[in-house]
Amino acid sequence: MPKYSIGLDFGTNSCRSVIIDIADGNELGTTVFDYPSGDLGILTDPSDPNVARQNPQDYIDGLEFVITGSLEKAKSNNPEFDSSDVIGIGVDTTGSTPIPVDESGTPLSLSPEFKDNLNAMVWLWKDHTAHAEAAEITSKAKALRPQYLAKCGGTYSSEWWWSKILHLKRCAPEVFEAAHSFVEHCDYIPALLAGNTDPLSMKRSVCAAGHKAMYSQEWGGLPDKEFLEQLDPKLSDLRDRLFNEAISSENVAGNLCSEWAKRTSLSEGTPIAVGAFDCHMGAVACGVKEGVLTKILGTSTCDIAVMPNSKELDDIPGVCGIVDGSVLPGHYGIEAGQSAVGDIFLWLVNNLVPDSYGTNSDDKFVKMEELMSGSSPGSSGLLALDWNNGNRTVLVDVRLSGLILGQTLQTKAHEIYRAYIEATAFGALTIINRIEEYGVPINEVVTTGGLAVKNHTLMQIYADVLNRPLKVAISDQTCAVGAAVFGASCSGDYEIAQLQENCSKVREEIYIPNPDNVSVYKELYCLYLELHDSFGTEEWQGNLSGVMKELIGIRESQRP
Amino acid sequence: MPKYSIGLDFGTNSCRSVIIDIADGNELGTTVFDYPSGDLGILTDPSDPNVARQNPQDYIDGLEFVITGSLEKAKSNNPEFDSSDVIGIGVDTTGSTPIPVDESGTPLSLSPEFKDNLNAMVWLWKDHTAHAEAAEITSKAKALRPQYLAKCGGTYSSEWWWSKILHLKRCAPEVFEAAHSFVEHCDYIPALLAGNTDPLSMKRSVCAAGHKAMYSQEWGGLPDKEFLEQLDPKLSDLRDRLFNEAISSENVAGNLCSEWAKRTSLSEGTPIAVGAFDCHMGAVACGVKEGVLTKILGTSTCDIAVMPNSKELDDIPGVCGIVDGSVLPGHYGIEAGQSAVGDIFLWLVNNLVPDSYGTNSDDKFVKMEELMSGSSPGSSGLLALDWNNGNRTVLVDVRLSGLILGQTLQTKAHEIYRAYIEATAFGALTIINRIEEYGVPINEVVTTGGLAVKNHTLMQIYADVLNRPLKVAISDQTCAVGAAVFGASCSGDYEIAQLQENCSKVREEIYIPNPDNVSVYKELYCLYLELHDSFGTEEWQGNLSGVMKELIGIRESQRP
Repeated sequence: MPKYSIGLDFGTNSCRSVIIDIADGNELGTTVFDYPSGDLGILTDPSDPNVARQNPQDYIDGLEFVITGSLEKAKSNNPEFDSSDVIGIGVDTTGSTPIPVDESGTPLSLSPEFKDNLNAMVWLWKDHTAHAEAAEITSKAKALRPQYLAKCGGTYSSEWWWSKILHLKRCAPEVFEAAHSFVEHCDYIPALLAGNTDPLSMKRSVCAAGHKAMYSQEWGGLPDKEFLEQLDPKLSDLRDRLFNEAISSENVAGNLCSEWAKRTSLSEGTPIAVGAFDCHMGAVACGVKEGVLTKILGTSTCDIAVMPNSKELDDIPGVCGIVDGSVLPGHYGIEAGQSAVGDIFLWLVNNLVPDSYGTNSDDKFVKMEELMSGSSPGSSGLLALDWNNGNRTVLVDVRLSGLILGQTLQTKAHEIYRAYIEATAFGALTIINRIEEYGVPINEVVTTGGLAVKNHTLMQIYADVLNRPLKVAISDQTCAVGAAVFGASCSGDYEIAQLQENCSKVREEIYIPNPDNVSVYKELYCLYLELHDSFGTEEWQGNLSGVMKELIGIRESQRP
Repeated sequence: MPKYSIGLDFGTNSCRSVIIDIADGNELGTTVFDYPSGDLGILTDPSDPNVARQNPQDYIDGLEFVITGSLEKAKSNNPEFDSSDVIGIGVDTTGSTPIPVDESGTPLSLSPEFKDNLNAMVWLWKDHTAHAEAAEITSKAKALRPQYLAKCGGTYSSEWWWSKILHLKRCAPEVFEAAHSFVEHCDYIPALLAGNTDPLSMKRSVCAAGHKAMYSQEWGGLPDKEFLEQLDPKLSDLRDRLFNEAISSENVAGNLCSEWAKRTSLSEGTPIAVGAFDCHMGAVACGVKEGVLTKILGTSTCDIAVMPNSKELDDIPGVCGIVDGSVLPGHYGIEAGQSAVGDIFLWLVNNLVPDSYGTNSDDKFVKMEELMSGSSPGSSGLLALDWNNGNRTVLVDVRLSGLILGQTLQTKAHEIYRAYIEATAFGALTIINRIEEYGVPINEVVTTGGLAVKNHTLMQIYADVLNRPLKVAISDQTCAVGAAVFGASCSGDYEIAQLQENCSKVREEIYIPNPDNVSVYKELYCLYLELHDSFGTEEWQGNLSGVMKELIGIRESQRP
């Protein structure tokens, strides 16, 4: 009898489900739900580009839609499929994406009182309003609890749990007061499916807590009350209404309750895995293991590496955390990432590419990639920094911005596009270099996400810049597949390693570095690093008068 | 009996003529001729963006066309007008725009042998191929003849006479060998009209020679042979086939020859003033005098100031020269300028502004100006350097390039346009500050050129950044009017000062600085200077990690 698992993946603009055959990873049915609220699912504030919120009702509506949709598709693909063959449910979401909830665990913004209050909504991962609080947490932790900081890369981010909650307390105290507790999106969905959203007893993800909320067994869970008191006495009080324990995703969060069994036609009692972040579960479906870095290439990127927890691993400055069990059992999970990659290209194509390239953004991308394919690295003379949305790794600073230099009066839009692709690749290399410096080998990169599948030009540039073979995971929806893997695992009958062997495959086409391009990119990367360090760090001292001249020199040597 | 003068203005893409009434500056007739060769009159090389040449045949064809055209228009505007009432001819051109010529003074490229040879063409002012030679001349002059360098701002430019001739010698020795001599475009046209193009006896402009060819009475004319020998022995030989004396434009270059009298129907024998550069003559038509800086705002800018030569004037580092008599008799002429202003906006609108702003570049400009009019300085968070075509003043370095920073994922094309307007204004302020530091007061700025007349948004931004009232010259073709002023002057019956009083008028609308904007721009200018000095000078030492954060701070304070 074939067995199936369902993975539920809540992304930035939509959620999706996939039903996989546990024996071989075959995808039987999948369904996508675009969040209807706001601008592509994101609630924004025209007066502050840092604001990014979501409506939790979108999650609930999407949850039912994507489960029922993929069950129907599975049935139509395979008439012998029966929803009772689904033996587990896995859930991943974006994060840190905290939701203010009432005593019953219901999101505040579902109540009439708060339904139009942006601050009572879900605080999406890419909300950057809490930069001042992040700086304050960093500086107080540096002084009082350096161990907290070391585990999350040396700098606490505005994208993370405590920054957001503290900022909410300050900018909208009435919402903070009304919130009995806070839950991560990835904890809320399993709890909702299990029919127990009580904030104090719902299972909490160690992936979310460890990477974003300074949770570690080393110091007894969440930051201690004395430290939180220094940030705000109300945070110290709040600690009692959060959680004492966070666990990894091979564990069961609960079993499907009768209400959600009815709404979805999955079997009541089906085990639901503890949730985790999308990229962590996606990494598992990409076959992450020692020596392999997985990279989800989307609007932003998330890079995941692992090291067996039997080995010594020092803290790595600038990464988004090192958490035991956050990715694979028995391994430290190392998370890093770039705050904007595909988002930069979308910004460019939507705002700065004339219609001579095409009448819609897809056509424009195709035309630009066609035009750049004939040119060599460095031939435009351009160099950019990939900071339009700040820098998550290794600088951990949202108060940075984009930069491009080298423009002449002949510079074309497709050359700028290429410069931004290269800038994001240089950003990716900076992350890999940092991780390797601390003893974690990265011999190979497995990518996934829309850009990895569709953008061959980008992939070859990445292979050349990273100077490593680049593989692409076979699934178009690795996060959802990863969630399904954990759904299967939590049923108790399968080991993750075995499931990875069954389900984590790569495509035939592998991008191999071109030695000529590698050597030009080594030169360009030195210049990138100069800009990176001079604008991004307080330590750098020097002069930049060589940068434009060296770029012009490279341009001259690279033009036919 | 009314008296008239004709001014002939040879610009970058076209030439034009104007006939003025000497008594009041009224313009009786004008005609424009677009150069037919190349791309808007410029011969380029796709493999090298530094190349900018012109076809001398365009000048000859244009010369006849614009003179006959304006005479016809004058006649049709005033039936009593007669071409014999034109008592003088003035000529201005771009420069340094050297032409390789044969023994008779005929441009080499008019011969069958060289007609398709780009190196035998006219080397347009904005040709930047000779940057290596410019650097070599600068370094050798620094060591051997510091006095030469001091008079032209401390750095010899790739846009100038000797750099271009030396580069020609090296890149196309066969053309150099075939050239008996070289003439500036502004000397060639008067000589052609006078029927004597003999390179050794034609009158040479002190404006061209003094600002671009290191000519000064202080050291007996052109650079001495010993110095030229150090650059190349062939340059030393060439010196004997150039000129010993250069004179100012209130002097007569010659009298109209019978051939050109026939071709144009001007009277044979009409006096022709010694030529000068467009901006120098334009400055006179703008009313340049002590305390007034004139600025021609076009594809590039040219700034002209003067100081009575009865006063002491130190050399000013970074300006394009201080030459006695190059603008007004009895005054030092001080030239400065920006290598690209309007060209940057044209590049932007033609390459990076989507059609949602309009279907052609004019509509796009109008829409962008409309959209930016509602926003405050600094509200985009952007900051740019105006170096897409290098930096002429005060850095004198073509091997610089454009830069823009502060981009987010929300940045719009019209915000980038504004940032580039501001960058060019900051560049303009840097020039004014430098000139004032050396004791030349600049109390008022009179502008002319297409941007000054049409772009009110830009003009207000300039007034706010420069923190000075900005006036606009009344004529739409000040350079041609200035040339006509010198045409009248060389007839011997009129003083320049009197002619300026008659003909140099400004429009009613004056742009007054807005104090709120002035104070924001002072902050932004400090950040501009940090970028300017860190990327543009070898002396600067420091760190730039404050730049992006300060821009974000200003952006936050300037948004509603």
